[in-house]
Amino acid sequence: MKKHLFKHITQLRVRNYEIDWQGIVHNANYLLFFEVGRIEYLKHIGLKLNLSSIQTDSRVVLVRNEIDYKNSAQFDDLLNIYTRVSYIKNTSFAFEGIIEDETAGRLIAENIAYHVWLHPKTGKPIRVRKDFRDKVGAFEGKNLRLIGEKK
Amino acid sequence: MKKHLFKHITQLRVRNYEIDWQGIVHNANYLLFFEVGRIEYLKHIGLKLNLSSIQTDSRVVLVRNEIDYKNSAQFDDLLNIYTRVSYIKNTSFAFEGIIEDETAGRLIAENIAYHVWLHPKTGKPIRVRKDFRDKVGAFEGKNLRLIGEKK
Amino acid sequence: MKKHLFKHITQLRVRNYEIDWQGIVHNANYLLFFEVGRIEYLKHIGLKLNLSSIQTDSRVVLVRNEIDYKNSAQFDDLLNIYTRVSYIKNTSFAFEGIIEDETAGRLIAENIAYHVWLHPKTGKPIRVRKDFRDKVGAFEGKNLRLIGEKK
Amino acid sequence: MKKHLFKHITQLRVRNYEIDWQGIVHNANYLLFFEVGRIEYLKHIGLKLNLSSIQTDSRVVLVRNEIDYKNSAQFDDLLNIYTRVSYIKNTSFAFEGIIEDETAGRLIAENIAYHVWLHPKTGKPIRVRKDFRDKVGAFEGKNLRLIGEKK
Repeated sequence: MKKHLFKHITQLRVRNYEIDWQGIVHNANYLLFFEVGRIEYLKHIGLKLNLSSIQTDSRVVLVRNEIDYKNSAQFDDLLNIYTRVSYIKNTSFAFEGIIEDETAGRLIAENIAYHVWLHPKTGKPIRVRKDFRDKVGAFEGKNLRLIGEKK
Repeated sequence: MKKHLFKHITQLRVRNYEIDWQGIVHNANYLLFFEVGRIEYLKHIGLKLNLSSIQTDSRVVLVRNEIDYKNSAQFDDLLNIYTRVSYIKNTSFAFEGIIEDETAGRLIAENIAYHVWLHPKTGKPIRVRKDFRDKVGAFEGKNLRLIGEKK
Repeated sequence: MKKHLFKHITQLRVRNYEIDWQGIVHNANYLLFFEVGRIEYLKHIGLKLNLSSIQTDSRVVLVRNEIDYKNSAQFDDLLNIYTRVSYIKNTSFAFEGIIEDETAGRLIAENIAYHVWLHPKTGKPIRVRKDFRDKVGAFEGKNLRLIGEKK
Repeated sequence: MKKHLFKHITQLRVRNYEIDWQGIVHNANYLLFFEVGRIEYLKHIGLKLNLSSIQTDSRVVLVRNEIDYKNSAQFDDLLNIYTRVSYIKNTSFAFEGIIEDETAGRLIAENIAYHVWLHPKTGKPIRVRKDFRDKVGAFEGKNLRLIGEKK
């Protein structure tokens, strides 16, 4: 992934209970870290995400995760989590994420998380909501690909 | 994925603390469930996996995970986890996994987990060990693809 | 604790990701295991516990946990979780739990979990509900202490 | 607990995956948060704690945890974790912890974690090591109770 395309960074410090029996961060925890990045990103661009909105108005589902593991993170590492929305299609969009170790500058893992926007009642895919398009578009600028949109 | 290719099943019951604030199994937990499947698989075919072997002789690393989320699992669902090794190349191999809900027969998630065999000291990729090839080959039979092997 | 007082057992197998960097089950996981025991107990005696009842009708809160760690559980250990309600007072009750290793018969940990029954709107303690008293009473019989009740 | 006795604070922000199906931090996570506090405390007073020291030289075991739950923490709450060693006996010592919500100043939970110092080979309790006594003593000053010591 191209790090210069990312405009949002969150930091996390690896906690001891995230370390597995091999002495490194357990592979499933990176999914949690990328998710922290996405939630901070949404907060940052002004898309409020709280518990009640999620439980009453949940229309966005994660349909696919891809994670490439590059190096292992260790206990007490300070991690930079880069997050961006890379594209928005009609009914779907994708987040990309990069985790790197702040101190050593090593690349730890990369993630693409594919999401689909669903009608809360029918469960059918519907067009990605306008406020999401607008706020992500304003934040990402020309780095955001709008796929299948008429000009 | 083609379920008839899978010869190994593990069962898990979803525990309450695996449910997230949306009332469904948190997406990262499926990675843990697939991993339980792989560990049970290795035990079943006679590749002993214990803590000491992992800490002193750890040569196999997970380099990539792909997970497709199809339906949500709920509290107390009984899950069938299907596991198989789909191919072995010279220095790498892949596990495939399917999770389905036992009661409703719904497909929950699919996973491909790519692994590389490393030299424990140099960290360079080395040929997948013979006992792994033999035991997986004996168990999987003709379903296992051996890629790049001379006949 | 006196094991002969317990009439309910749940079994769990320790999963690899529950092991910490010391090679043993992480201490916080025992809280999760005891909770699994309590939930199975409630299901067993006929107090249905599902997600919707918890989110709309949550009146029972955990106010204190005590855990004594006796021996470490290891990867792949089969654990017996003994669960009972030891007493019911006017507005509160306690669960006791014992975890032991099935194979070696070793005592792993003991727990007392203190709960209070709250009014769902005011949040004030109220009398423990009758169906809970009745079903626990029927199951536990003379082992259950009813504290502060008029005869 | 008396907050003015605590000289060490760590901060944590509650992450989304720490929230359970009731919409609040799952009760077992507070144990993890108190542990983060203890590890930061040990680092702060100069007792280095890294993975290799734990795996080769693990002599300190947690034998009992007591947690009192006062109020629920929510998603995105910033938590202050207060940590101190309250006493050192001959072969044992205890950590106390308080978690409070930074914004509202609400008390969330309190913890006492009892530890015993063991001989790494025999597993028998031995005297708490001098460097631990010295560094904790220097940091805590008169707040630390030394129990059963000859003057």
